[in-house]
Parts: sequence; structure tokens; C-alpha cells
Amino acid sequence: MPRFVSSSFQIALFAAFFVGIGSGCRAPSPAPEADRAAIRDVLTAQVAAWNRGDIEAFMDGYARTDSLRFASGGSVQRGWAAALERYQASYPSRAAMGTLAFQQLDVRLLGPTSALVFGRWQLTRASDTPSGLFTLLFMRRAEGWRIVHDHTSAASP
Amino acid sequence: MPRFVSSSFQIALFAAFFVGIGSGCRAPSPAPEADRAAIRDVLTAQVAAWNRGDIEAFMDGYARTDSLRFASGGSVQRGWAAALERYQASYPSRAAMGTLAFQQLDVRLLGPTSALVFGRWQLTRASDTPSGLFTLLFMRRAEGWRIVHDHTSAASP
Repeated sequence: MPRFVSSSFQIALFAAFFVGIGSGCRAPSPAPEADRAAIRDVLTAQVAAWNRGDIEAFMDGYARTDSLRFASGGSVQRGWAAALERYQASYPSRAAMGTLAFQQLDVRLLGPTSALVFGRWQLTRASDTPSGLFTLLFMRRAEGWRIVHDHTSAASP
Repeated sequence: MPRFVSSSFQIALFAAFFVGIGSGCRAPSPAPEADRAAIRDVLTAQVAAWNRGDIEAFMDGYARTDSLRFASGGSVQRGWAAALERYQASYPSRAAMGTLAFQQLDVRLLGPTSALVFGRWQLTRASDTPSGLFTLLFMRRAEGWRIVHDHTSAASP
């Protein structure tokens, strides 16, 4: 979709309207609350791993498959191993990794094996605080709920 | 998710790997091909509407609900009417709208009433060619398949 042109004022205005919402789109699931909790646990574990400098453990939240799909800005990448390499290259030190936080998480179960998660990410580093939004597709796999698609965007600095 | 830091080389490299894929995550649906076609029809109609300068008709692809969710860059907006207003403000003329194209569409049915669509958008205008990626959540509603969530990101100019 063509991108909106946003003024800072508009961003502030609309941000004020943004609240976490329930799951109006949910499909029946045997135990939706358990699924939602399991998905949140994956994200909580990712944040904890990142904040102790363990990118490999952070990557445990993603499905270990060559079809893992990352969309960021204008580029798409595929594959778990490639994503790990890119994270390691982009965040080569604890200082570069900073402290990660997820906010405004909204978990929507779409069926017994799929869920969409919206949220906001923020890194706090000595020199800057990059932030943005993500849309994650989780699938239930043999090993548990895992991210199979990640679309991330960054706020203008 | 923290955003990758991408070099042009990396983007080119990974772009070379990108191919449209099938729907490995699909859930059973009574007529998945019909659903997929209906969703593609919505997107085709959106492009046609945009390219004749009709933003209201373009907005027909979105669910007319206050919970319609737009995520772009670092900001989230809600509501069909607000989205229409913002599109009209951001694209006040045919020259600003340019010519829209969607590419690399990947439609994944997640269940009988939900589907995720990945794709790339590009505007061709006299002065520039902005482009980027989108992730769309479609829900089957009384009036047909409609977008209820749009996450759009832009490539760096």
C-alpha cells in the first residue's frame, strides 16, 4: 500500500488513539488463552535473550526453516540461518544491541495453528533509541509456537 | 523486532533469493482457490481505482470499521474514515498519486475467514518512484474479503 505521509503532529495524534485491543478476529481454538500465553512467553524469552546478549537464543523464537520470511523497509530475506547471520552482523556488540523492549502487544489467534501479533519494539542504547513496529505471523509447530513471518518497520529518526 | 542494518550489497543479494512461494501454511478451506482469487480481485480493483485517481474506490478494499489498523514506519492509525482522510491529504493530486503497481503477491489462507497477503508496492511518478513492502490481514466479511490490518514499510530513497 502506498505509504502515508505523516507529520509529527499526526503521528502524535494517532498514537494517542492507539490502545491494545482484544481479539475480535479470533477463530475457535481449544484453549485460546493457553495459546496466547504460549505466544507471549516466546516473545518474553526473546527479549530476555536479547538483553543478556544472546542472539542465538533470541532466534529460538523463529521457526528454523529456510522459508522463514523477514520483511523490513523495502527488502525481503529468507531463512533462519541467514537471519541469525544478519542479526549478528548488524548487532556485533552488547553496546550495539542495547536494551530491547516490546510494547503494545496484540495477539490475535486466527485459527488453531496460526496467530498474528502486532507490537512496537524499542532499543535503548547509549547513543540513540531506535524504535518501530512489527507484524508477526506465528504458526504452531511440533516444537511450539514460532514466528514464520516478520514484517518490521522503523520510525523516522 | 529490531531492524536489520542492510547494506545495498546485502539487499541485492537477498533480493536475488526472493521468489514468490506457495502457501505452505494454508489451513483447510472449502474452496481455497476461489478465496485466493477473490482476494487477488480486491487488490486488482484497488490498483485500478488508484490509477484512475479514485481514492474512495481504492479504500473499498479495506473493511469499513473503526478497528481497521494501519501500521506504517513507527506509527499506528485506526479507522476507515481516518485512513481515507489521510490518503486524500497525502495524495492530493493525480500527479502525487502517480501510477501504482503491486508485485510479488503471496496470498496465504490461514483459515476459512482469514488470509495474509505479502507483497511489494511501487509508485511511478514524474519526480520519484517510492516503493516498499506490505503485509495485509484479510478477513472474510459479509461484503466479501476485506483488509483489516495493513503494515506498510518503505524502501530507503
